[in-house]
Formats: sequence, C-alpha cells, structure tokens
Amino acid sequence: MFRAIGFGLLVIAVTHAVRAEDAVVENVVFAIHGGIGLDKVEMTPEIDKRVRTELEQALRAGFAALNKPNATGLDAVEAAIRLMEDSPQFNAGRGAVFTHDGRNELDASIMEGKTLKAGSVAGVSTVKNPITAARAVMEKSKHVLLVSRGAEAFAAERGLEIVDPKYFRTEERWQQLQKQLEEEKKRSEVRGQRPEGISERYLPGFSFGTVGAIALDKAGNLSAGTSTGGMSNKRWGRVGDSPIIGAGTYADNEACAVSATGHGEYFIRYSVAHDIVALMKYKALPVNAAADEVIRKKLKAAGGEGGVICLDHRGRFYPSYNTEGMYRGCITRDGQVQVRIFEQ
Amino acid sequence: MFRAIGFGLLVIAVTHAVRAEDAVVENVVFAIHGGIGLDKVEMTPEIDKRVRTELEQALRAGFAALNKPNATGLDAVEAAIRLMEDSPQFNAGRGAVFTHDGRNELDASIMEGKTLKAGSVAGVSTVKNPITAARAVMEKSKHVLLVSRGAEAFAAERGLEIVDPKYFRTEERWQQLQKQLEEEKKRSEVRGQRPEGISERYLPGFSFGTVGAIALDKAGNLSAGTSTGGMSNKRWGRVGDSPIIGAGTYADNEACAVSATGHGEYFIRYSVAHDIVALMKYKALPVNAAADEVIRKKLKAAGGEGGVICLDHRGRFYPSYNTEGMYRGCITRDGQVQVRIFEQ
Repeated sequence: MFRAIGFGLLVIAVTHAVRAEDAVVENVVFAIHGGIGLDKVEMTPEIDKRVRTELEQALRAGFAALNKPNATGLDAVEAAIRLMEDSPQFNAGRGAVFTHDGRNELDASIMEGKTLKAGSVAGVSTVKNPITAARAVMEKSKHVLLVSRGAEAFAAERGLEIVDPKYFRTEERWQQLQKQLEEEKKRSEVRGQRPEGISERYLPGFSFGTVGAIALDKAGNLSAGTSTGGMSNKRWGRVGDSPIIGAGTYADNEACAVSATGHGEYFIRYSVAHDIVALMKYKALPVNAAADEVIRKKLKAAGGEGGVICLDHRGRFYPSYNTEGMYRGCITRDGQVQVRIFEQ
Repeated sequence: MFRAIGFGLLVIAVTHAVRAEDAVVENVVFAIHGGIGLDKVEMTPEIDKRVRTELEQALRAGFAALNKPNATGLDAVEAAIRLMEDSPQFNAGRGAVFTHDGRNELDASIMEGKTLKAGSVAGVSTVKNPITAARAVMEKSKHVLLVSRGAEAFAAERGLEIVDPKYFRTEERWQQLQKQLEEEKKRSEVRGQRPEGISERYLPGFSFGTVGAIALDKAGNLSAGTSTGGMSNKRWGRVGDSPIIGAGTYADNEACAVSATGHGEYFIRYSVAHDIVALMKYKALPVNAAADEVIRKKLKAAGGEGGVICLDHRGRFYPSYNTEGMYRGCITRDGQVQVRIFEQ
C-alpha cells in the first residue's frame, strides 16, 4: 500500500516543488536509510522494487525489536542495521565495496542520545556485523573508537561472530572494482593521474549504499547508527564519516538523532551530524531547517554530495539530501511504513 | 621575564579565583599546548623549568615559521608540532606512550579555517612526524582520515620520513608501561579486572602530554593541529580524539581554532572542538565563554578531564581546562611570549 503511495508522490514531486516542512513525518519511532542511491534516469522498476522491499524489511525488523519488552532504541538500530549488513544489496557488511587491494574494510558507529555514549569500529575485515562490534565498544569497553586489527581482536575477545574476509565478497562489487581498476589504468596512462577511491554513487552497477538507522524509544531516548564499506577502490586505510561520531552519526536527546551517507570527507570536515544538533540546540531551529541548513546549503555550496536522516525528540522525521534521491523509510508509532527514494 | 610573571600569577591564582575574561590574551598570533600535565603537588621546580623551556622553544619555532614570506598558519602549526614530536618529552612522536603490546601508535590531525580542509592519520608506527603526514593527507590526497598500515604506505609513497618503530621509544615511557602492566596483573589477580588503557595524566613519571598548536596568520586565516601517542597501555587499536576533526581539532575562520588534550573518549562523544565553534557561531558567545561552557561545564559534569586552547579570528587566545593545570603558551603579534601551567 505504501509503495503505491510512494509512486503517487513521485509523480507529484516531479511537477511540484515540495517545501521542506511538508516532508516532515510526525509520530515516527524508527527510520533507516540505504544510501543516496541512483539518479532518476538510472532507476528501473526492478531496482525500485528491490530497494523498497529491502528497506521495508529492515524497517519492520527495527520496529519489532523496538516493541520487545525492555527494548531500547539501540536494539532497534542494531537489529535493522544487522539485517542490511547481512543483505548483499547494501554497501555494508556482506556486499560492501572493495578497496584498491581487493579487500572489504568496514566501518560502523552507534550512539545513545540520553548518555551521549558512543562506539565505533573502522577498517575491520573479519567482523560479520560491524554495528554489533560498535555497540560492544560502547557498552563493553572504556573506549569509543577502535581501528583495524585491534578492533578485530576486540570483537573476537568479546565473542562476536568472526568470518573469513571472503564472506563479504559479492560478484557485483568485485566487478565494480575491476572496472574501476581498468579505467584507472587507462587514465594514468593518458594523464598520469593517481588512483584514489570514488564514491559509491558513481559506481557502475546497481547495488545500494551506506546504511543507517535512528530510533526514538518508549522511554523517549534517541539512538543512531551507521554502517558502511566506504568508497570503492579506496586506498591507504581511508576512513570516511560513518564511524566518526559527530560526522556520520550523532544522537542527543536534547535535539535529534542523525545518520548520514555521502561523500564522507565533506561530512567529516563539516562535522555534519553534530552541526545539525548544534543548530537545533543553539539556534532553536526545527529539525528540518537544521538539516537543510547543513546539507542543502553548506554542504551543497562546498560540493559535498550526500544526505542525512534525522529524528527529533518529538518523533518528527526528516530526510535532507542534496542529491536527486536518497533511499530511506520510516515507521510511525502505530506501525505505518513509508518508503521513499526521490519524492520528498 | 615571562616566567617570573608566571610565578607571580601562580601565587595570586592560589588565593584568588581568576575570572575567565581576565585570562583572555589579546593580539595572539600563535599558541600551543603540551597536555593537561601534573597536579600542583607533583610539580617540582625542575619539571616546571623543563616544561617552560620546551614550550617556549616550540612557540618561537612556530612564530618564526609564521613570519616567513608567504607563510600560512599551517606552516607554523606544523613547525611547532614537529619540534614537539621530535622532543622525547611529549606524548607525541618520539617519547610517545606505549600500547599494551609495547608499540607506539601515533595519531595527528590538522585543519585550515578558511577552507575547512583537514587531514588526519591514526595508528601509525613508522612515520617520524605524524603532523606532516596529516598535512599531506589534507593537501595531497582527496581524503581526510587514513589509518594504520594504509596511512604509513601513503606517507612512504609521498616521500615523508619513515623510521624504524624503535625510533619512538624512550626508557621513561617503557618503564611507565612496565609499571602499568605489573599493576594490571595484580588487579586482575585480585579482582579479575580487565586491562584497559589509562590517561597519560595518571602515569607514573614526569613526561608531558599530547601536543597542539593554533595560528592566526597575516591573511587572517586560522589553523589548528594536534598530535599524540594516545593512552598508555591502550589496546585493540584504540584511537582517541586527536585525529578526529570536530573532536580534538577544529578551525573555522568564522569562529576560532581549537586543539584539545585530555580523556579523548569524552572529547569524541561531546564533539568538543566543533561544539566550541558552534557556540560561537550560533549563540554568538565570545571564545572564552564558548570554551568554558564545553570544558568546564559540560565535560566536567560528565567526568571528562581535559582542556583546549582556542584562538579566535580577532587574535583572542583562551585556554580552558577542568584540571588543575594545562601546559600551554602563546605569542603575540609583536613577539611577546607567555607560558603558563596552573595560573590562568
């Protein structure tokens, strides 16, 4: 049913500009994103259907977790992100993009808005669910950020599921890397250009992107989490914004929960997630105005493509992006699911 | 001369509370810190002299770099931090604390307030000057944050000075680790406690801490940089706030430049450096009020020990810390040096 509504709104969005305040959804308790996605011209009915199905499943998984007795928002965030990490469709966990050296290096973070506690892992290649490792860092260590082999050792000591690095490999992502390496070789032969990672948005093929989730639980606490494989063809241990608290993820009960996706370097430099929170707290902006100020104004002016999903402490959900679309969805207190791609 | 003034103020500070606005130094073009340091009862005249000498040298090196033709604030920040990285006294570069596994894993970051460009490295063990590697990431890659072996490979490809990991070792830091490992063993035998890293502030011995520098150059541009060995006895690839843009380092021409030191996990969770900038931009707070709001109020209430040095776009320098003291100094446009430890 909601898919039909989604298509209806798509048609409207093409001909009418939708004001930001119209796009705020009230009474939301859980929301997710699956990256900034394809341009409209690349979208097919088949991909559209695949995205919506996957997002709806993750939304329902998070909602179910949220409604268990004594559940917190962290449980919902972790449950939905685990599902998307396990799906080969998203650039997170299994199905992540490859590094230049043919590896999958994964980043994730999680944060609790009541206590401002947080945990992150970056550059892990053996942890099946990086979001669960991030939560373990938050809850079972005195630290916030663990990287590379050290983070893997921590996850193993804590009894988390460890997999052979090959587990994360999918043929589509491998072929994406091969195409990039070929193009890179041609470019460097012609112009001597040095290879660097490129954004998932510009990859050949139709897998989805970075994933994130935000929740408002029954106790009124906000949570946020993000998980990614980063840039395809990335080199030199490059880490983007997803595991950086304040950049790709933030949650503060006094403002909102945020999860980001996009060109991570810009999100770090602009402290995007924390900046949205700061605009709400210090300038008393509503969540949609704060998000648009950062994403559609500052980041767009700087050339930083991407978007965020935000959920404030009153249950107002708002996605802001400066690309054509963003794969995302939300679910209200009474279980109404809404999934969107291009339409506000 | 300034040392004498310093001691004089120390005496006053013991009996009279000094208001924050009294502690703002005007017309500053360059400032540094060397960590949050010892408590008063641990301080000896000999350590006091050593700290002041080292800080003054670094201040003068930064000031000299700043006054070269066509120099930018980044040149001053890099020059002063390189000197402190090369000194065995600070917890940065040579003389860094050891990890649980007996390694030195170094983190650094740098940021330019005009463009919001930034660069960081984390967990490197072979790069002689991590601050120079951070600057290379900013200026010679499309990335912001590179970690571990990848960051080392990048530094080597860029022709930066690579050293044997043993280069960073000092006997004092090694003995600190041995003492910690012994205590840890006793504790785990008695109470089954798990070992985790501890803050440099609680280490036996009298080496100094994390280092940082901030500059306001002739073009009116702000810059900031930070470099550290992190927590002694740290495990699992723990990374603190120093290489995290928005946490340990930030520079924005519209507000101020910030470099932090202290219990890094709190600085990440509270996005400390960016929060100070946000309070100036969105609540129009002056630099000292913004810094105190974050360090002396929020962080102190949360139990997060540490401090920051800040320099606003008008040349107003202000250090804020919730510990007894902070090793820091500044130099004014006309070359007046001021070094302080406990006294505001």
